[in-house]
Amino acid sequence: MSPTVPRWDHIELAFEAEAEGNPFLDVSLQVEFVHGHRRLPVEGFYDGAMHGAGVWRARCMPDAVGDWRWETRSNLPALDGLSGAFVCAPPAEGVHGPVQVVDRYHFAYADGTPYHPVGTTCYVWNHQGDALEEQTLRTLADAPFSKMRMCVFPKRYLYNLNEPPCYPFVGEPTGTWDRSLIRQRDVPPPDYWDFDQFNPAYFQRLERRILDLQALGIEADLILFHPYDHGAWGFDQMPREVNERVLRYLVARLAAFRNVWWSFANEFDLMRHLTTADWDHYFRLVQTLDPHQHLRSIHNCMGFYDHAKPWVTHCSIQHHDLTQVARWLALYGKPVVVDECGYEGDIGQVWGSLSAEELLVRFWLGFTEGGYVGHGETYWNPEERLWWSKGGTLQGESVPRIAFLREVIEAVPPPGLDPAGADGTGSRLIPEGSWNKVAGGHRGDDYFLFYYGMHQPRVRTFHLPEGRYRAELLDTWNMTVTPAGAGLSGTVDIALPGRKHMALRIMREA
Amino acid sequence: MSPTVPRWDHIELAFEAEAEGNPFLDVSLQVEFVHGHRRLPVEGFYDGAMHGAGVWRARCMPDAVGDWRWETRSNLPALDGLSGAFVCAPPAEGVHGPVQVVDRYHFAYADGTPYHPVGTTCYVWNHQGDALEEQTLRTLADAPFSKMRMCVFPKRYLYNLNEPPCYPFVGEPTGTWDRSLIRQRDVPPPDYWDFDQFNPAYFQRLERRILDLQALGIEADLILFHPYDHGAWGFDQMPREVNERVLRYLVARLAAFRNVWWSFANEFDLMRHLTTADWDHYFRLVQTLDPHQHLRSIHNCMGFYDHAKPWVTHCSIQHHDLTQVARWLALYGKPVVVDECGYEGDIGQVWGSLSAEELLVRFWLGFTEGGYVGHGETYWNPEERLWWSKGGTLQGESVPRIAFLREVIEAVPPPGLDPAGADGTGSRLIPEGSWNKVAGGHRGDDYFLFYYGMHQPRVRTFHLPEGRYRAELLDTWNMTVTPAGAGLSGTVDIALPGRKHMALRIMREA
Repeated sequence: MSPTVPRWDHIELAFEAEAEGNPFLDVSLQVEFVHGHRRLPVEGFYDGAMHGAGVWRARCMPDAVGDWRWETRSNLPALDGLSGAFVCAPPAEGVHGPVQVVDRYHFAYADGTPYHPVGTTCYVWNHQGDALEEQTLRTLADAPFSKMRMCVFPKRYLYNLNEPPCYPFVGEPTGTWDRSLIRQRDVPPPDYWDFDQFNPAYFQRLERRILDLQALGIEADLILFHPYDHGAWGFDQMPREVNERVLRYLVARLAAFRNVWWSFANEFDLMRHLTTADWDHYFRLVQTLDPHQHLRSIHNCMGFYDHAKPWVTHCSIQHHDLTQVARWLALYGKPVVVDECGYEGDIGQVWGSLSAEELLVRFWLGFTEGGYVGHGETYWNPEERLWWSKGGTLQGESVPRIAFLREVIEAVPPPGLDPAGADGTGSRLIPEGSWNKVAGGHRGDDYFLFYYGMHQPRVRTFHLPEGRYRAELLDTWNMTVTPAGAGLSGTVDIALPGRKHMALRIMREA
Repeated sequence: MSPTVPRWDHIELAFEAEAEGNPFLDVSLQVEFVHGHRRLPVEGFYDGAMHGAGVWRARCMPDAVGDWRWETRSNLPALDGLSGAFVCAPPAEGVHGPVQVVDRYHFAYADGTPYHPVGTTCYVWNHQGDALEEQTLRTLADAPFSKMRMCVFPKRYLYNLNEPPCYPFVGEPTGTWDRSLIRQRDVPPPDYWDFDQFNPAYFQRLERRILDLQALGIEADLILFHPYDHGAWGFDQMPREVNERVLRYLVARLAAFRNVWWSFANEFDLMRHLTTADWDHYFRLVQTLDPHQHLRSIHNCMGFYDHAKPWVTHCSIQHHDLTQVARWLALYGKPVVVDECGYEGDIGQVWGSLSAEELLVRFWLGFTEGGYVGHGETYWNPEERLWWSKGGTLQGESVPRIAFLREVIEAVPPPGLDPAGADGTGSRLIPEGSWNKVAGGHRGDDYFLFYYGMHQPRVRTFHLPEGRYRAELLDTWNMTVTPAGAGLSGTVDIALPGRKHMALRIMREA
């Protein structure tokens, strides 16, 4: 009898064989997964030796209920021509599939359930050892976040001076890292790695953490490359063929996990030896390899990559000015996720010392205009365990308020808010007048959300479309919802309390 | 014996004559004021009839101590070939002359005393009748403002539905203004004015109010044209030759008042029938006519006039984003006065509902980076007397804090702050690193001011220039100054309290 796999779960095939030479480089393994007329080609990967034999695996995420079969091709006879079958069953309770772009500016799970990225960032939480990593997972279980930005490679940076539990390649660092290198970029890579041999344990660890997030309903926005190495390990300076090999290996290992997103880099423009053509190439490589077509993006420091390129599924933006969200939506025609707008904290960096209030204003500005904004926390503590990098616990005042915002956004009619105003996005003129808005979004004529931030109006006037509406006043700081009128029609004045942090939602009555 | 006039005060000559025809159009009067080899040509103006005879006047602001003489030329024989003399004495106590641009980005009075525009806006306070106007003057006497934006012509707009005490031309409005016109622009002018005849009483009233401000040490930033008429009087729609005649008449009457600035328009770009060439022409006309070369600027709604044009002395900007000040300084190479960044208040307009906190943040951002920012207040009250337009009293929480900011700015070494950072302004890299600043300004290596706004760092690191420095922590909301270190040199960490609204000033020790 065939094994059964729930839809959007992953099936893993394991094959043992004697390997000669370098199993990473010398053995090819492709597995074709077939469902009816559909064929999903998947690359297998070498996962190290067990009981004296080499272990190869191949993974697939079946996305359709019914009978599936598979067969292998390999240059290693023992791995070639194998085949099997399995049954894809209905998904497990609460499983909705991988996240996709819908309706131009928004996201939904594969089964159509709306998905709203309310992200946080713990860049290298997964390189901190089990005790802290498990604490991070406990924190996340009670936090409002539906996406985590995290790095494949370890990080050397301010407040990031520790070594990871293990390394991605065979080899051991020798000597002591020179702290003065932290001010330098493009430090040549050290020579103690065997870039021809991955360390499977490193990737098994990464997989475990991605699946831990999956169990919590959190998407893993996986940062493939980043510049924060400064000669510590040289993972930012690897040759092109090694980068390609990393990408192939990651796709082979991870693409079957439904909660994986590919973020090609953090602050790609700080990796100055890589050109736009290099990034284009890496994007297209993964686009070609990934049988499940996970979301793909790239994150900037200063200048943007051209998010309009066809292999980019959505904009991943670092910027402090959230009033530009509607402009980016119009410019790129894709969802805008401002993954980094500054972090709540108190450290000596401008990006890491936002008050909770300021971060919350940025969140509301971005979400109200149809974008998505990401969180991070950088409160200093004597252990130098800052959430933004290592995870651990949260202490900021923005977190519960982001939870409130998430509730508000989840209550918007699907797929979500479009920006409002005559701003070139092609969206309709909102009932407040575009010149007179702080921030506004809408879902057709059924739902409007207006946000006033640091403004304190005592009244706002709306020219409503046909029909009757009701209004609610949202206190974004105190997290309250108060009725603000029902049976509204035509031109109406809605009273506000004359204090900051207010929003109004106006909904068509049934 | 010759009369005596203190330096930078104004002398007024008055001549009576029988006038035939239209004395405004048919009589020319020029007076040449001569001091040594210097000749200041001034236009006289008709000021109406007294005791049955026409009265012509000519005014001059002598700007150099010593003997002056004058002589007239006119097509009216009774006014032609007259001459006289006077002595210019040292200035009265506290009089420093008209304000000029100094050191590219700053202002000073003619005697070199630094002048910092800390402006407010009461667009038509001078058209409200004596009771309210005198209340406004009493309010100003206790307020921190050194500049007032005010209009020559009355205003019809939201909260501005009253008639002025008198009108600038001979004629009387007939009929009732149609309120629906307030949504329209470019309403044709009514036909009940005699644009060939000014009403001198109107201009005498304006002069009185300008001199009232002068007595309080406040510059009158006089808005010559504006679009807020909507068919009430048609003063926004006058033919070109009438506009020219208005400018000539205003220069003739007002240029001798040392506290006059010429602001060619408020929101010039909303006067859509006027082209850039029209504004160029009006600028150049006043530039040619004004013997005292008062400051000249023009204020935008959306797009900017090209402030780099040579007849513009400084940028008068409406914009909400004060982080752009350094960019505008670099772009135009002139002082930047953000006369309108939104107003503290609670009305239903985005520009009129800033919290005191938000206005204060905008002030500090702009001033810290070497610009100047203007105030206004729009709290609704049942009389609809909003300070921003009619004057009256102030109730906002920003005013005392602007007074504190003014003290801070006045304590900067002259001429004032230049923007800090590698921002293309040619200014030096500041000791915080330009990528890591919220806002920063400096006066050479002697003085640095850093502002943190809605950020809450607990520490900031500075790489100080050679020498020893002391630091003070400024709480911009609570208006306190606290020592934050002395004898500082090299790379130093300065502790901050981890709350918003903080600034640091770092001064070279003597």
